[in-house]
Amino acid sequence: MKRVVDVQLGARSYPVSIAPGLLDDANTIAATVGGRHALIVSNEVVAPLALARVQQALSAKSVATVVLPDGEVQKSLASADRLFAALAKMGASRDATLVALGGGVIGDLTGFAAALWMRGVPFVQIPTTLLAMVDSSVGGKTAVNLAQGKNLVGAFHQPRAVLIDPDMLASLPKRELRAGFAEVVKYGAIGDHAFFAWLEHHAEALLMLKPDSTAEAIERSVRHKAGVVARDEREDGERALLNFGHTFGHAIETLGEYRGLNHGEAVAVGMVLAAELSARLGMAPSADHDRLNDLLVRLGLPTRIPPGYAADKLLDAMRLDKKALSGQLRLILWRGIGRAEVVSAVPDAKILETLKAGGAL
Amino acid sequence: MKRVVDVQLGARSYPVSIAPGLLDDANTIAATVGGRHALIVSNEVVAPLALARVQQALSAKSVATVVLPDGEVQKSLASADRLFAALAKMGASRDATLVALGGGVIGDLTGFAAALWMRGVPFVQIPTTLLAMVDSSVGGKTAVNLAQGKNLVGAFHQPRAVLIDPDMLASLPKRELRAGFAEVVKYGAIGDHAFFAWLEHHAEALLMLKPDSTAEAIERSVRHKAGVVARDEREDGERALLNFGHTFGHAIETLGEYRGLNHGEAVAVGMVLAAELSARLGMAPSADHDRLNDLLVRLGLPTRIPPGYAADKLLDAMRLDKKALSGQLRLILWRGIGRAEVVSAVPDAKILETLKAGGAL
Repeated sequence: MKRVVDVQLGARSYPVSIAPGLLDDANTIAATVGGRHALIVSNEVVAPLALARVQQALSAKSVATVVLPDGEVQKSLASADRLFAALAKMGASRDATLVALGGGVIGDLTGFAAALWMRGVPFVQIPTTLLAMVDSSVGGKTAVNLAQGKNLVGAFHQPRAVLIDPDMLASLPKRELRAGFAEVVKYGAIGDHAFFAWLEHHAEALLMLKPDSTAEAIERSVRHKAGVVARDEREDGERALLNFGHTFGHAIETLGEYRGLNHGEAVAVGMVLAAELSARLGMAPSADHDRLNDLLVRLGLPTRIPPGYAADKLLDAMRLDKKALSGQLRLILWRGIGRAEVVSAVPDAKILETLKAGGAL
Repeated sequence: MKRVVDVQLGARSYPVSIAPGLLDDANTIAATVGGRHALIVSNEVVAPLALARVQQALSAKSVATVVLPDGEVQKSLASADRLFAALAKMGASRDATLVALGGGVIGDLTGFAAALWMRGVPFVQIPTTLLAMVDSSVGGKTAVNLAQGKNLVGAFHQPRAVLIDPDMLASLPKRELRAGFAEVVKYGAIGDHAFFAWLEHHAEALLMLKPDSTAEAIERSVRHKAGVVARDEREDGERALLNFGHTFGHAIETLGEYRGLNHGEAVAVGMVLAAELSARLGMAPSADHDRLNDLLVRLGLPTRIPPGYAADKLLDAMRLDKKALSGQLRLILWRGIGRAEVVSAVPDAKILETLKAGGAL
């Protein structure tokens, strides 16, 4: 069964196709990737599992491939420069299509390069991690990191299509799989109480990757994301809610120099911190904080800041996060499960209290 | 007298103000640059002449400055990285405005960095060379170069305003001034026979920088560019005509590794080559080629390829130029003065003949 979710953005609309075995469907892959030149970008972990099938499907074109080492540090201007060099070497012009075959790092980097090559060429996302399937591959946010912070440099550039094969998840390290569930839980937490409750009932089925539950969770997540992106592509309003847990999470990632918690884990901790802060501000019941905490724990995710992080350093990093506006923190908090909102002017003292209660020094 | 040309792009519309002495008008500069943080980008030639005035005008903000060495080699990802580091260091968020104070290199680089910092922040162009005033500062094309070619990596990102002070031209090296006239002549050549004739009558006044003629030439050029950009922002059609002479010119610049002819000079040669090729294809009278050649010579511009360039190498470089489509060259030729058009499928032999007639080996 093939599930298709459309991201409705007028002339830039595109389909997200979800189907087990999709990577074996050479015709669909070939029909999705247009143009005369294709540059496939992947990493050393995914390439042995899937690259040959994609290369084969595109064999009628002039195809080049860049396989990067795995890891967040590859999401850099230096890696983008490698992709540009590969495009120049193959004589790629505006007719080139980039194909991102991998997780969020590969997708964000490849989209970034596609946004900039000759001021913009098409790209197709083939996400292979749960995190990329339910979040980063949909919506057109592309970026690279700087030493000073995550995603500080980027562009809005929508893919032409997203191809999701849930079968890829079977080979995903369990830690990566659990990290992806953090973003799945986020959709329930910020705007869909029923989905949150569904997740509470299916947590074990999801951890075991039962096919129906897995495809259902992916589709509901993508549908939520697609709706938000269609209503607010450039994050002038509602889309900011998708950053629930992210300002806290990015600060943890930055201070860990991207070698501590991974993105999903940091977001899990960040969501619990956001719920904790919401309770401390009297905005939301602590019972909802506890339900969020419990669901994330059942999904094998951390919910506390790892040892050794200083609260004041975390707060400094939160300020540089690009969601900050004019130096004032604008946080995504909630009034309870399914009801996130943007809050400005939260007193520093409350944030520091929350960070310390969450495990910071 | 202040002349204002509006670039009409809906919500992204902006004014181009042309007034002698504008750089002394601190109130206008302050009112034009919004936000809490400003990063002024300039180069070592322009900074001593103008930087203090702009810094003074913006002294109510948090201001940082990056002064780069002069030269096209600065239009690189490495320089963009320097701007990003400066933005991060000053704690700039989405409220930052970048200010480009310099020629086309500074403008293109600064606009590129503004397009990417936190996925896009405002920038203001204060062009100080004739080339930047009449061409690159208007229209939102931003880019950096790769070793493999000019402007291969970039973004469309419109400035919030363009401030032009023609008094800056008095301190411009004469070679730079003449180079700027190449783009002025281009507007007449591609679409405005009357302006071309006006230029034939005012060539000497322009070389002497007579104030009225200079401001008139800038305004007419900007008005032409603004109209084209408003009708075809993304270069899906008409805007391509602005590349008259540029595919030839970029090839000459690339083979010279940006150390031979400068951009305007290369465009002058390129326009004459385009006119020559048009005549060889029977599209246009050679009398018009001769008028173009003569006007450029009177303005002190080269009209032949410098010694030592091989025709086949130039043709290869033309193919990688981003105006090429699917490897097939798409050239801007003309049917005579004021009537440029896009031509595909020009036989290689005709191009090689033209290059050789123009001085290539």
